[in-house]
Amino acid sequence: MNAPRMPHISVLPSGALGTIADVSGVTVGHCTLDQDAIQTGVTVIRAHRDDPYRQKVPAAASVINGFGKSIGLVQVEELGALETPIALTNTFGVGAVAQAQIRAAIASNPQIGREWPTVNPLVFECNDGYLNDIQALAIQETHYMQALDAAAASFDRGSVGAGRGMSCFDLKGGIGSASRVVSVAGRDFTVGALVLANFGRLPMLTIDGVPVGRELALARHKQATHATATKPEQGSIIMIVATDAPLDARQLKRLSMRAAAGLSRTGSVYGHGSGDIALAFSTAWTVAHEGDHIATPPLLNDARLDPLFHACADSVEHAIVDALWSARSVTGRDGHARLSLHDAVPDLEQRLKQRSA
Amino acid sequence: MNAPRMPHISVLPSGALGTIADVSGVTVGHCTLDQDAIQTGVTVIRAHRDDPYRQKVPAAASVINGFGKSIGLVQVEELGALETPIALTNTFGVGAVAQAQIRAAIASNPQIGREWPTVNPLVFECNDGYLNDIQALAIQETHYMQALDAAAASFDRGSVGAGRGMSCFDLKGGIGSASRVVSVAGRDFTVGALVLANFGRLPMLTIDGVPVGRELALARHKQATHATATKPEQGSIIMIVATDAPLDARQLKRLSMRAAAGLSRTGSVYGHGSGDIALAFSTAWTVAHEGDHIATPPLLNDARLDPLFHACADSVEHAIVDALWSARSVTGRDGHARLSLHDAVPDLEQRLKQRSA
Amino acid sequence: MNAPRMPHISVLPSGALGTIADVSGVTVGHCTLDQDAIQTGVTVIRAHRDDPYRQKVPAAASVINGFGKSIGLVQVEELGALETPIALTNTFGVGAVAQAQIRAAIASNPQIGREWPTVNPLVFECNDGYLNDIQALAIQETHYMQALDAAAASFDRGSVGAGRGMSCFDLKGGIGSASRVVSVAGRDFTVGALVLANFGRLPMLTIDGVPVGRELALARHKQATHATATKPEQGSIIMIVATDAPLDARQLKRLSMRAAAGLSRTGSVYGHGSGDIALAFSTAWTVAHEGDHIATPPLLNDARLDPLFHACADSVEHAIVDALWSARSVTGRDGHARLSLHDAVPDLEQRLKQRSA
Amino acid sequence: MNAPRMPHISVLPSGALGTIADVSGVTVGHCTLDQDAIQTGVTVIRAHRDDPYRQKVPAAASVINGFGKSIGLVQVEELGALETPIALTNTFGVGAVAQAQIRAAIASNPQIGREWPTVNPLVFECNDGYLNDIQALAIQETHYMQALDAAAASFDRGSVGAGRGMSCFDLKGGIGSASRVVSVAGRDFTVGALVLANFGRLPMLTIDGVPVGRELALARHKQATHATATKPEQGSIIMIVATDAPLDARQLKRLSMRAAAGLSRTGSVYGHGSGDIALAFSTAWTVAHEGDHIATPPLLNDARLDPLFHACADSVEHAIVDALWSARSVTGRDGHARLSLHDAVPDLEQRLKQRSA
Repeated sequence: MNAPRMPHISVLPSGALGTIADVSGVTVGHCTLDQDAIQTGVTVIRAHRDDPYRQKVPAAASVINGFGKSIGLVQVEELGALETPIALTNTFGVGAVAQAQIRAAIASNPQIGREWPTVNPLVFECNDGYLNDIQALAIQETHYMQALDAAAASFDRGSVGAGRGMSCFDLKGGIGSASRVVSVAGRDFTVGALVLANFGRLPMLTIDGVPVGRELALARHKQATHATATKPEQGSIIMIVATDAPLDARQLKRLSMRAAAGLSRTGSVYGHGSGDIALAFSTAWTVAHEGDHIATPPLLNDARLDPLFHACADSVEHAIVDALWSARSVTGRDGHARLSLHDAVPDLEQRLKQRSA
Repeated sequence: MNAPRMPHISVLPSGALGTIADVSGVTVGHCTLDQDAIQTGVTVIRAHRDDPYRQKVPAAASVINGFGKSIGLVQVEELGALETPIALTNTFGVGAVAQAQIRAAIASNPQIGREWPTVNPLVFECNDGYLNDIQALAIQETHYMQALDAAAASFDRGSVGAGRGMSCFDLKGGIGSASRVVSVAGRDFTVGALVLANFGRLPMLTIDGVPVGRELALARHKQATHATATKPEQGSIIMIVATDAPLDARQLKRLSMRAAAGLSRTGSVYGHGSGDIALAFSTAWTVAHEGDHIATPPLLNDARLDPLFHACADSVEHAIVDALWSARSVTGRDGHARLSLHDAVPDLEQRLKQRSA
Repeated sequence: MNAPRMPHISVLPSGALGTIADVSGVTVGHCTLDQDAIQTGVTVIRAHRDDPYRQKVPAAASVINGFGKSIGLVQVEELGALETPIALTNTFGVGAVAQAQIRAAIASNPQIGREWPTVNPLVFECNDGYLNDIQALAIQETHYMQALDAAAASFDRGSVGAGRGMSCFDLKGGIGSASRVVSVAGRDFTVGALVLANFGRLPMLTIDGVPVGRELALARHKQATHATATKPEQGSIIMIVATDAPLDARQLKRLSMRAAAGLSRTGSVYGHGSGDIALAFSTAWTVAHEGDHIATPPLLNDARLDPLFHACADSVEHAIVDALWSARSVTGRDGHARLSLHDAVPDLEQRLKQRSA
Repeated sequence: MNAPRMPHISVLPSGALGTIADVSGVTVGHCTLDQDAIQTGVTVIRAHRDDPYRQKVPAAASVINGFGKSIGLVQVEELGALETPIALTNTFGVGAVAQAQIRAAIASNPQIGREWPTVNPLVFECNDGYLNDIQALAIQETHYMQALDAAAASFDRGSVGAGRGMSCFDLKGGIGSASRVVSVAGRDFTVGALVLANFGRLPMLTIDGVPVGRELALARHKQATHATATKPEQGSIIMIVATDAPLDARQLKRLSMRAAAGLSRTGSVYGHGSGDIALAFSTAWTVAHEGDHIATPPLLNDARLDPLFHACADSVEHAIVDALWSARSVTGRDGHARLSLHDAVPDLEQRLKQRSA
């Protein structure tokens, strides 16, 4: 498909790749399952190339709406650090992926659970049950390992990995990514976002401020249809935010909250049945599992955070639109199908241009 | 001034008054101080006409960004109820207004602090120090009492009460209000919002999806200027959400969180220096201070909340625009002035119409 | 073994069974794995005999120290309800048990993940790696099903189920339970606790106010040894609190927090490496998955909660001592062994009597 | 009165002064109002001798039970820093003291509320309405200034300052303080606590593990009386924890939570009507209001926190007993009187010795 070029959302510049991998060291890998009714997968985000258990990554999360079944957030909240890669998958794959993370951590560090403490798996999920036969519990430990092995700075978006079976605004959703570069105190810092987008009803869809969904619904029904008239969401969105700015867990929690701003610009009101979770991490420093008792990490003054907050909201908004823009139409279980944004709205470019005209 | 009619934001219908007072029983009163460098005031929101200490109101709050100096939220979080009216004022008026609330509660209930527990004052604030000589600590207890006495279903918006000295998007901000009516499980429920809007830089301003601020900045500077290029916010926004839907404190906390969606649609990313707090309450039932040991309040099933979530986001967005729309230009301390939206953007109607064309 | 009778802690009376099953309808089942280096298991607590997905149970949790790897708390925090039985197991068994819960829920309700939302597994864990070869990942889905099938009002405590490999104060820990009956507003209510006790170093051990551990350390080392001189905890404790008092999620969160008081009375300071989590649920009402849109659950006035708070603290304290009291010595992997309290402190009765003399 | 020497609680050693001032730089001042029915006051804790607005102090709080009316915690939670001294007073004095803090901050920094943001007052309170005519709103701004001016490393405890009118376990409560020194990673660190103790019913009173209150109640009533049989608490306790260990806000929140352990050892279950709040701060580093954009504060590895957690619990427990031990009997409004612990339990030493015998 020769997809039209996506408009740049907001005036902040993007990084070179236009993805979360613009944050140096961050890599992403997918394992995609695409066989008849099985339309699902696993996506892995690595913060750095070293052993994440030995070099823990400062991180924090905001639970915007907690209709979700992730594992790992209790310890992230307490300790403010990641000690595994971040994994995304479908709701019923969390157990298998968590076990795979445990097994991988033990393989690298046989002290885990013995002389050392246990390891905290970190797995997020969305419900891809519309397209995927989620009841088949198709995700196995090996799929995590495949996604992990595939992690690279260059990666696909759209209907891949954990995004394979996801729906968004009644269209095909999935994996999206974006980045923004901002100047803070004379230095450039990058904020990157990767989303697993699986939320929303069509009448809510808003792209760069244009209420595309409302207009489509109006055209079809000859009157404005509000999302409240449609059946409730059973979706979710996971928003992973990376930055090379030197932030601690408290500041990263603040940063992660700004994902809510980016999310709402696309039309979301954080529906009851949507597990909307944002996690932010910094690559500027790590916490050694065994190392100095007293470290001196670099920490940005809170008064300098505003550009990063803007970059977070913009990156997340852009990443969500990117997920729609990148996805291809998929047919899954029981003949269920989701059209891509481009297939569903062939005149999309015109609609968006009208506004900027 | 003959202000143009504000466009209706979103497709959900408004209540009859188009304010928070569409939630039956809710009243609002102002006390406005407008004398040279003193440009400030107090606004009071009452949930019902009875004694709020004896008939406590189920409520909960979301602290979207906690750069704020309110009093009362610790107990609201624990007990899920209001026992005074809600007061809004400037940052340095919180102490005086809290004392006034205490004195008023004791006057009605002399048992308070003796055989009965103490009373929990609830005062929110924004920093109006740009227009108002906030260092003068002009707010006195009597101003709270005046605002309380003035509470009515019909009330002014814009540069009044606590909103007198507030700025929003570098324009004149203040008090705004709106409401939405939704059908849930066959019944109509109303959600109303009242905001004290004092946040944002001009380049962020977005009205009904139109990036008015970006366009203005572009016109002026011949290139897009992002808010990150301007100096940081020292603002805040307080968002009070009322509903007649039967919700408990946990559900009201969920509802209040949706104010973040409405807020971000106007351009906010919840800036570092902005105290962005939403509080939601229900008028469907009360908690008796001394009464039945076991009550049976009506509670809506969580699965039915989505229409209320949409109504909250839409009401808050609309209320913020209403604050701008209703405000008049004000000159305050040291010659500082804020233009109203209409004075600053005389061609606003055209700009907004272009989009819907 | 003919164990001495445990002293009654506190003056509040116990229920008839002296366990969490005194809360009518609550049942507990174990699956115990005891084969050479595999010393582990699963324990299941059911709140009622009906389908937990269709009749959800009001609940809330307090994370006292979040060094833990549970699954399910994000949604419990948001929605205030359980929709599966509560499962306890070892840290690396969470994934398998969560998958078993999902499979069981689907078996009963094939709509799950299709026309209905997904199901929220709820699995808590402690690290039994000292006695158990936790790296073997021995827990399988079938073990959850066995524990579930075994659930009954009468159940074993001590070195059974999830408690099989647990250590507590450097002694044999495991499952303990207790209950208290209190009068509130003229009615009797029961609070029951079940703990999975796997925390603490010997010098901290305190039974009914007697610093048994400090005395033992003193006797051995001729000088008082503080727990800070020993190596850090890698333990945890899960505290499940049930009540038939009519409470909502906000109140249950308050109740669960009182588990921290009971826990600390036994000597804990909620060590860094200890995942100390309390979850409380009420059996007084349920939330129908599909039912009335507006329910009228019975809710106790918060001003009446104090007796329940005392009962929670006392039950948890008693349940922890019960875990030690009930446990038998166990030898596990690599010759690691934990003595039971009775084997380690043969003169325990005398020590405790001295105080009450 | 020639009070008996208080037993040392726990085996960790105390600092030289045995108060919070053992944390170098910390000072405490009181203003005591003692005139007929007015039995109240203000206590101020300073973290260092510099301007607290320009050199902000890393801090965090745990709300153990939120029946309280403090001001300032919302911003402390968001930013993890103090920018005023910490003030303690009675419930209805919070407004006046907050205004005094604002005025003092402006006096030192006239930019506040103008080119600089506003200042966050931080005032905690307990209800001294049993002894004090709290309805008189006797606390004025000047009382804060007097307490601030009096701040010194040497200070009184007991029935002084904010503690003047406080009750604890139906006895005279008030201000107590204690400290502990621990070795962490080869260095000595001090943890100090200062409490404003105003909670509890007599039957709950426990001193160093001895259930003194239960015994007293038993002696009087010929049968054990549980606290649940008495009327509910309307008290509270504020626990301020200082340390020179290099911790950030997240870690200080963890530290503050351990105050709950110390508190419960004295018999508390965090009663419904008790505002139980702990705040911890570190003197090891400060956050400059205007300074380096990127700082490199020293931060202890979380895995080293256990000794500090023990020191916090022990200090708080000791400080509470110290408040009782130091207080003298006071008669206040309407002939209400509270006996000191020594006056109420003349054979206290014997009772405590029995145990250790």
